[in-house]
Amino acid sequence: MPRADHLSPGAVKMLQEKQLAQISTVMTDGAPQLTPVWVDVEDDGSHVLINTVEGRLKAKNTARDPRVAVSVVDSQNWQRFVIVRGRIVEQTREGADEHIEKLAWKYLGKSFHHPGDQRLILRIKPEWVLERNV
Amino acid sequence: MPRADHLSPGAVKMLQEKQLAQISTVMTDGAPQLTPVWVDVEDDGSHVLINTVEGRLKAKNTARDPRVAVSVVDSQNWQRFVIVRGRIVEQTREGADEHIEKLAWKYLGKSFHHPGDQRLILRIKPEWVLERNV
Repeated sequence: MPRADHLSPGAVKMLQEKQLAQISTVMTDGAPQLTPVWVDVEDDGSHVLINTVEGRLKAKNTARDPRVAVSVVDSQNWQRFVIVRGRIVEQTREGADEHIEKLAWKYLGKSFHHPGDQRLILRIKPEWVLERNV
Repeated sequence: MPRADHLSPGAVKMLQEKQLAQISTVMTDGAPQLTPVWVDVEDDGSHVLINTVEGRLKAKNTARDPRVAVSVVDSQNWQRFVIVRGRIVEQTREGADEHIEKLAWKYLGKSFHHPGDQRLILRIKPEWVLERNV
């Protein structure tokens, strides 16, 4: 059965790898919205972290309704995956520039400069977690 | 800008490849739900097809609220992707066993027998389509 409120050490390890996530949010009219995103996780598995830009759809949607779902499927082994449902408990600019830089090195292997962007960290508290083969 | 109501030939070709999709539906309480799934598409790009089992969460959710989002990201090139928002215009048992068999050969390279399952085809009509590098 899915556990409630945090990721296992194996799932944390998987989210620390260069794996693509998908995040689903809710539109104004209640329809689902879905975006591929880079992903990060706190070491203790207590929160999943997404970095976005102020004004983007997922930032606006989650400011209004913080409920999200996030999936991470191993691109080399689709039987290995983590799915989280939960809510964004914090949207913060603090540390967001350093955080996107950390993600850029993880995903691109290089720096990522978009000086005009106001970056935001979306901190997601898991409420339902499904893990397979992590 | 995203087009409204069908996929381009390049996006159709991509969905005919062995690429994993993610589908997002809406839970009873309005929260988003997300699942990795096999995917199929009609040749003319008019509908995206998902095959599921009666009684599963995504079948129940979409019987109540037909709005979904589907993303397909190339597992070897994350810059190549298709995202669709739309609604399920039909849930049908007709042809669903043959259809899961077609998908099994595409994704597993072999047959897929789960005799107890009542399979369903979910036929999704795109209303918003974003394509990159297809």
